[in-house]
Amino acid sequence: MTSKKASDSLVIMTELVLPNDTNTFGTLMGGRLMYWMDIAAALAGAKHCNVPVVTASVDNISFTSPIKLGNVVHIEAKLSRAFHSSMEVYLKVWGEDILQQYRYKSNEAFFTFVAVDHNGKPRAVPELNPETEEEKMLFESALRRRQLRLILAGKMKPDDASELKALFIQS
Amino acid sequence: MTSKKASDSLVIMTELVLPNDTNTFGTLMGGRLMYWMDIAAALAGAKHCNVPVVTASVDNISFTSPIKLGNVVHIEAKLSRAFHSSMEVYLKVWGEDILQQYRYKSNEAFFTFVAVDHNGKPRAVPELNPETEEEKMLFESALRRRQLRLILAGKMKPDDASELKALFIQS
Amino acid sequence: MTSKKASDSLVIMTELVLPNDTNTFGTLMGGRLMYWMDIAAALAGAKHCNVPVVTASVDNISFTSPIKLGNVVHIEAKLSRAFHSSMEVYLKVWGEDILQQYRYKSNEAFFTFVAVDHNGKPRAVPELNPETEEEKMLFESALRRRQLRLILAGKMKPDDASELKALFIQS
Amino acid sequence: MTSKKASDSLVIMTELVLPNDTNTFGTLMGGRLMYWMDIAAALAGAKHCNVPVVTASVDNISFTSPIKLGNVVHIEAKLSRAFHSSMEVYLKVWGEDILQQYRYKSNEAFFTFVAVDHNGKPRAVPELNPETEEEKMLFESALRRRQLRLILAGKMKPDDASELKALFIQS
Amino acid sequence: MTSKKASDSLVIMTELVLPNDTNTFGTLMGGRLMYWMDIAAALAGAKHCNVPVVTASVDNISFTSPIKLGNVVHIEAKLSRAFHSSMEVYLKVWGEDILQQYRYKSNEAFFTFVAVDHNGKPRAVPELNPETEEEKMLFESALRRRQLRLILAGKMKPDDASELKALFIQS
Amino acid sequence: MTSKKASDSLVIMTELVLPNDTNTFGTLMGGRLMYWMDIAAALAGAKHCNVPVVTASVDNISFTSPIKLGNVVHIEAKLSRAFHSSMEVYLKVWGEDILQQYRYKSNEAFFTFVAVDHNGKPRAVPELNPETEEEKMLFESALRRRQLRLILAGKMKPDDASELKALFIQS
Repeated sequence: MTSKKASDSLVIMTELVLPNDTNTFGTLMGGRLMYWMDIAAALAGAKHCNVPVVTASVDNISFTSPIKLGNVVHIEAKLSRAFHSSMEVYLKVWGEDILQQYRYKSNEAFFTFVAVDHNGKPRAVPELNPETEEEKMLFESALRRRQLRLILAGKMKPDDASELKALFIQS
Repeated sequence: MTSKKASDSLVIMTELVLPNDTNTFGTLMGGRLMYWMDIAAALAGAKHCNVPVVTASVDNISFTSPIKLGNVVHIEAKLSRAFHSSMEVYLKVWGEDILQQYRYKSNEAFFTFVAVDHNGKPRAVPELNPETEEEKMLFESALRRRQLRLILAGKMKPDDASELKALFIQS
Repeated sequence: MTSKKASDSLVIMTELVLPNDTNTFGTLMGGRLMYWMDIAAALAGAKHCNVPVVTASVDNISFTSPIKLGNVVHIEAKLSRAFHSSMEVYLKVWGEDILQQYRYKSNEAFFTFVAVDHNGKPRAVPELNPETEEEKMLFESALRRRQLRLILAGKMKPDDASELKALFIQS
Repeated sequence: MTSKKASDSLVIMTELVLPNDTNTFGTLMGGRLMYWMDIAAALAGAKHCNVPVVTASVDNISFTSPIKLGNVVHIEAKLSRAFHSSMEVYLKVWGEDILQQYRYKSNEAFFTFVAVDHNGKPRAVPELNPETEEEKMLFESALRRRQLRLILAGKMKPDDASELKALFIQS
Repeated sequence: MTSKKASDSLVIMTELVLPNDTNTFGTLMGGRLMYWMDIAAALAGAKHCNVPVVTASVDNISFTSPIKLGNVVHIEAKLSRAFHSSMEVYLKVWGEDILQQYRYKSNEAFFTFVAVDHNGKPRAVPELNPETEEEKMLFESALRRRQLRLILAGKMKPDDASELKALFIQS
Repeated sequence: MTSKKASDSLVIMTELVLPNDTNTFGTLMGGRLMYWMDIAAALAGAKHCNVPVVTASVDNISFTSPIKLGNVVHIEAKLSRAFHSSMEVYLKVWGEDILQQYRYKSNEAFFTFVAVDHNGKPRAVPELNPETEEEKMLFESALRRRQLRLILAGKMKPDDASELKALFIQS
């Protein structure tokens, strides 16, 4: 099981915001957007390990600009780091108003998936080999996000989160 | 605009997992679950402020047990704290296998919504008045979660997050 | 197979009326509402007998107030009586305009389900044990509704419907 | 506003049962079927009066045979009687297994719709002119069903339901 | 395996255009219409051969008039010719504005399906026996359409398309 | 209104085949695929002209390999030629089995859209400027496809279709 490139897992998804996707303001509901993001990210994870994957966690997502009815949603998902049996996927999401000709950022997010065998048990995945500057930066910072996930899930004590701790006591 | 009780915002949602909600393993897709959670949480927020709300952010969610095809999803959403124009909603999600007669935890989550006027501008919401022990605990810890959100969104320096910082340097 | 309480079967469902659920007036289509009611009632039936159930019949439903786009649908379903292999479920449905802060009745209904084994054959269900005044009243009147169902399905002669007949010749 | 023929309102609907329409047995959910029936019946009502209509009530429906995944649903809806501003629609529903080449009855039903003006107020509809023997029989029995509806909705005393009463005291 | 009549395969489908079926103009999206047409045509094909069928090709479709939100879509599908294991289905599609009381043509189309056995391999279908003038005309012209399909799919040289060629060099 | 590059209109869409998208064989229904293709192509058209577009026609589509449940659909849509107010979009569609790691062609297609103003009237679009060899070839052959469309729609006599005629009488 050799390592794979981040770019091998790239998934590009384009969706049109239809009436039923919107709230009373005519803007895309956050939950509908996360539905699409979960599928894009799951496909990126599956492309890396070529076995079925299940969503393990979703990191904090902050929605910047609402996406309007009739606008287009662009989602790009790509592996940022592989751990033993889990994979972190980085997503960039933006909206596009084709008629007015501008694009606007919606959010960035990190979804984590676990690769599973036919009995639903976790199984090992290939390592990720980051190439570009951005890929390397995301690869490095993945450790810090992982510690935060473990703390928030109650599986690690804050005091043991060396990567994360540095953020708070560096000054 | 007087304060309101947390229990006034309670929303109870029950959904049945149908074939199209599932992945290749016959378990509920994470994105489909977040779609339902977003609606339940938005309704809880709207019940608190009685004006339209939009999803501002979703905190880290960790999915514990997969929910199977034909099982039932239970979602309870209730306000945990109101800030000036934003509201944090606490969700508890569990699955139920009615035939085997057991319930299992799926996840807990925090969604944040912003109340908006007819022009989509943020507007003030009533304060929240927590009553039970759990409500008070969630109310208190909301400050810490808010600081983490601001840091993760790049709107606060870790060093200024007094509530959160205490977690890491208490020992 | 001991008897079970009515409250054990309670199902609470909350749904948001989205654009595709509405007719040209922007009000919830009756068929879409019955779709949700059928699922809520089926879950109540399954919670009573813990085996799969199929819809056997729906009693007369009269829709009082239309439910508007963006409003909320509340459905409460609870067993009203168990017969040998069939179960009658009582539903209360109301709408809620969260922004205007009022609730309005939509309808009450009775759905009947049959418990089935793995071959789709009817199988016995536990008896129902009503506790509250309302539960006892619904339990009693279930016989009358059952006779009406049998007459309307051509399986009983009006003259043999002793419970129902009393209604028409009491004066 | 002259009278119209029953056949002018005929609506023929054909639907394929897809995975998401089915319960855990692979048979069509009752609620999904009523969703289609409501649309077919509403179109029949609208064809009679050429103004928008809303579902007022659904009479007792008894489901005979389950319709399987991959089978076809046939719905025929036709006006059975027009009252002042309301219209009763008669539906026949059957399933078809194309591969095994047989058709089976699912149910017969009566839906009632009210014609409404732009303010949602009831407005008069044309009279119905039944032509065939079946149309005439349905036209006659509509009075009896209407009385039953009024009694069940608490809008008529059983003692005043002359048409219906005859059924129970004829012997 | 005897021949069958064209009328035996007739499928009549009626659909209501709901908000999510429409583009930003409030008219039915072409793709949503083709989704319904594909199901209607597949059912017509299956009714002819009584085995599962898969869509093999769709001939050029030209959409005449847009179908509006709230209008009705009428689709009639009927076999036009059977070849060895494939069947050509002819569809007529029109819209109806029930309130304004007029019908308008949307398009005519030809879909081709292949009958398949349990392993997904093509299998022979009964011959078609056209009866009416229109059925006979469609039966005859099917050869010409088939040659065009083969040329467009790169499976026949234009020079060998005798039926089609006649069209271009008749003058 | 200057000319635009073909690459400016590129739309990349990725979809996962879910249970409700499939027929009884567990393969993607042709109509569901055309639904996605229509949206991808409409977005490509709108990106070229930056005004709303409506589907005018779909050229012959031949489906090569069925796409399986759980597989991925890849659609690439790009303008091939602009006429006065209409635009031809070229689509390439393939399936991907991520677990087995292979991709397979589904079909190529041409959809034509018309740009419309706020009254739904056709309006002029920018010219297309093809750059690559493939773009230039598609640009050239668009005239021939257009003549075929006009003949099939009964708007041109075969004898006048000079581009197309050459195909049949070249030998």
